[in-house]
Amino acid sequence: MKLKPMYFEDFSVGMTFETDGTLISKDEIIDFASKYDPQTFHLDEEEAKKGPFGQLTSSGFMTLGKSFTQIFKTDIFNGTGMGAWGLDELRWTKPVYPGDVLKTKVEVLETKKSSKNPTKGTVRLKQTVTNQNDDIVMTWISNSMLKTKQDK
Amino acid sequence: MKLKPMYFEDFSVGMTFETDGTLISKDEIIDFASKYDPQTFHLDEEEAKKGPFGQLTSSGFMTLGKSFTQIFKTDIFNGTGMGAWGLDELRWTKPVYPGDVLKTKVEVLETKKSSKNPTKGTVRLKQTVTNQNDDIVMTWISNSMLKTKQDK
Repeated sequence: MKLKPMYFEDFSVGMTFETDGTLISKDEIIDFASKYDPQTFHLDEEEAKKGPFGQLTSSGFMTLGKSFTQIFKTDIFNGTGMGAWGLDELRWTKPVYPGDVLKTKVEVLETKKSSKNPTKGTVRLKQTVTNQNDDIVMTWISNSMLKTKQDK
Repeated sequence: MKLKPMYFEDFSVGMTFETDGTLISKDEIIDFASKYDPQTFHLDEEEAKKGPFGQLTSSGFMTLGKSFTQIFKTDIFNGTGMGAWGLDELRWTKPVYPGDVLKTKVEVLETKKSSKNPTKGTVRLKQTVTNQNDDIVMTWISNSMLKTKQDK
């Protein structure tokens, strides 16, 4: 789903939107793990059988990057996003397996204009990531900097 | 620096350790961004000049994965780590540029045995990531599950 790029002022508390779904493949799980999370249960199918999840699972850091990318690809921050200064309360609530299809629902928790710089403001967002069975696999809160319309 | 793998009981509040340094390359920044954080200031050197940092910077999600991998490669969780259930208060305090060398200092904030399962416990860790100038570029708190010695 494509959205219009939004400036700081376009966000209001309680607003929600949802991304398209993305398939998580075994090859991508292993490739990501080899570089950014080389725990055996993310890296090696055989070893993962003996691990805490009994099978290969996605690195939670990869699930996070996939979720962010889903949001970014809606275009909502396209040209208006200035990066994020932090995350809060990220929870990995269920494992993500090869073949899962994940999507992200976003809710605006708070908006706060910068007191120092009128050209930007923070939008605090809660992300809820679900799989094809509607199980919640991850939740995370981000504090994103957006341009204000003064910077159009 | 290699450490001995540690079980839940081996961690105590206030304990610290530090990882080796890792070079962040331009190619890796761009490759990561293309898959997990396609904001122009992480993806395209020319476009990044017009962006919020005036030059190409690492995705904060990549910095996070690099930092975790540094810790994992000390071997401290090797065979004893059971994944993490969450992160708290992640802050990106300064940009990370191509050519930066990052290392991670880890401090044990809290340890809590599982009330349900005597074979595991949570270790809450604060990570401080610095660059070659000793600037803090990121801090993050993780809640990691570790095996207890009962599961040896």
